[in-house]
Amino acid sequence: MTKNVAVFGLGSMGMGIAQSCLAAGLRVTGFDPNKHRTRAFAAIGGERGTPQASAPDIDAAVLVVLNAKQVEDVLFGAEGIVTHLRPGTLVMVCATVAPEFAAQTAARCIQDGLLYLDAPISGGAVKAGQGALSVMAAGSEAAFAAAGPILDATAEAVFHLGDTAGQGSAMKAANQLLAGVHIAAMAEALTFAMTQNITPETFLKVISQSAGASWMLENRAPHVVAGDYSPKSQVAIWPKDLGIVLGAAQAAGLETPLTRAALGQFDAAVAQDLSAQDDAAVAKVYARQAGLTLPGDGL
Amino acid sequence: MTKNVAVFGLGSMGMGIAQSCLAAGLRVTGFDPNKHRTRAFAAIGGERGTPQASAPDIDAAVLVVLNAKQVEDVLFGAEGIVTHLRPGTLVMVCATVAPEFAAQTAARCIQDGLLYLDAPISGGAVKAGQGALSVMAAGSEAAFAAAGPILDATAEAVFHLGDTAGQGSAMKAANQLLAGVHIAAMAEALTFAMTQNITPETFLKVISQSAGASWMLENRAPHVVAGDYSPKSQVAIWPKDLGIVLGAAQAAGLETPLTRAALGQFDAAVAQDLSAQDDAAVAKVYARQAGLTLPGDGL
Repeated sequence: MTKNVAVFGLGSMGMGIAQSCLAAGLRVTGFDPNKHRTRAFAAIGGERGTPQASAPDIDAAVLVVLNAKQVEDVLFGAEGIVTHLRPGTLVMVCATVAPEFAAQTAARCIQDGLLYLDAPISGGAVKAGQGALSVMAAGSEAAFAAAGPILDATAEAVFHLGDTAGQGSAMKAANQLLAGVHIAAMAEALTFAMTQNITPETFLKVISQSAGASWMLENRAPHVVAGDYSPKSQVAIWPKDLGIVLGAAQAAGLETPLTRAALGQFDAAVAQDLSAQDDAAVAKVYARQAGLTLPGDGL
Repeated sequence: MTKNVAVFGLGSMGMGIAQSCLAAGLRVTGFDPNKHRTRAFAAIGGERGTPQASAPDIDAAVLVVLNAKQVEDVLFGAEGIVTHLRPGTLVMVCATVAPEFAAQTAARCIQDGLLYLDAPISGGAVKAGQGALSVMAAGSEAAFAAAGPILDATAEAVFHLGDTAGQGSAMKAANQLLAGVHIAAMAEALTFAMTQNITPETFLKVISQSAGASWMLENRAPHVVAGDYSPKSQVAIWPKDLGIVLGAAQAAGLETPLTRAALGQFDAAVAQDLSAQDDAAVAKVYARQAGLTLPGDGL
């Protein structure tokens, strides 16, 4: 039975997951290179430690890190935990990574006697803290069973996508394809409307009730209307996530022109020093190109 | 007071509008080059006639035709009605046309003493028949007043976008930008998922509950899942509508790479003889390119 959980990565998503696990009565140790975060987590009841020393005591390692390189480091790096975990311990990877990387990492963990759940998450930091995430999960029956208490504590929807690691990451990639394209399309349509003397407020009001609506438009267009680019989700994740989609699509021989076009806009946003802003700031790429003034952007 | 209405164009949208006007107690004359349609409308209580002979008796001409050329023909062609309408008659154009064309056509009608409502519609044939359309409207107060009984009969939402014709068409163009991009993105993501061994059914189920959701995906992806491409909305409208967006964007100096990418996919669908199929058939362009077999598409 899973009782001792280690959460690697205490950013907004990881902190939310760690808190939800604590609230569900699990014992949770939090790891993050940023000591402010581990201290903040200790202040609300979390444990601290060093990865290799803590490893033999934990039942499940939940990786809520940013990318494949960080997954690799936590598991197999200089302070890597894999060889220090007890046989049968669960490794649950919530990062958005390439399906092929998930499959390969799972194979290495399973070879070392561990359980592996490919478990990318969706929903944002607020839902993470409320225990209301969506999880796109794939793994063995034993891995799902070991993850049960963690999924109960953190997710309102768990999609079982198969018994092979990689299927969860593949579903997440398909979701990110749409999400990234929809954010860029929101920016393209909002600035197009501005060129036609339609204000961003009117645009948002009408589209929200029309066939052009999307989850991302309704979530992100308000940031542009308010001129508020404090990062709920950063521009920087999109070159990574859409790059994962492009790589997997190319390997399968599928051309993805919309993904490519959206990636081009996010790459332009990074080149314009917008990486750390909210991803709705991709609207600035359009506005600057066409000489438009967005709300809050100057006079 | 508007009592005698002429509806030009009795395709699925025009027939729905004509029926809703009849049901609201208006006297409605229906015009269409296709005599099967005018006979079908007469059978349910509509009037028949010839445009120029009927023109002096009507209070409002509602144009539910396909494109700018047909608008031009109905108003100013060999059988054009404009010079036969009484002063103060309303011309209400529901076709999706370029904002500039709407403004120019309105100016010509107003010069001839008529009222003009720029009134593109959204919602599909089912909602047209239920009197539950969305109308993105712009025009003078007098034009809105004259259109009142027709809007009451046909629309569940009327957006007042300004007092100058062209603003309604501009809002419709922004909506079509998103709608067209979202249909193509649905096809791109669904086929991407297939390359990763995720079935279209699973894709639809998971995305409908995730951040990748859009109005168009939830409406169109079921057609691909069912392998049913009987046209609810045809591939053929998208090269026209996205062409309107591109033209207006270019005139304003705005680059629209996602619109361009989506247009490329619909152009490819037309080149592959899919024009008359449901627009979800843009998925076939992706599937053929990558050698995938969609549901219902052969073994």
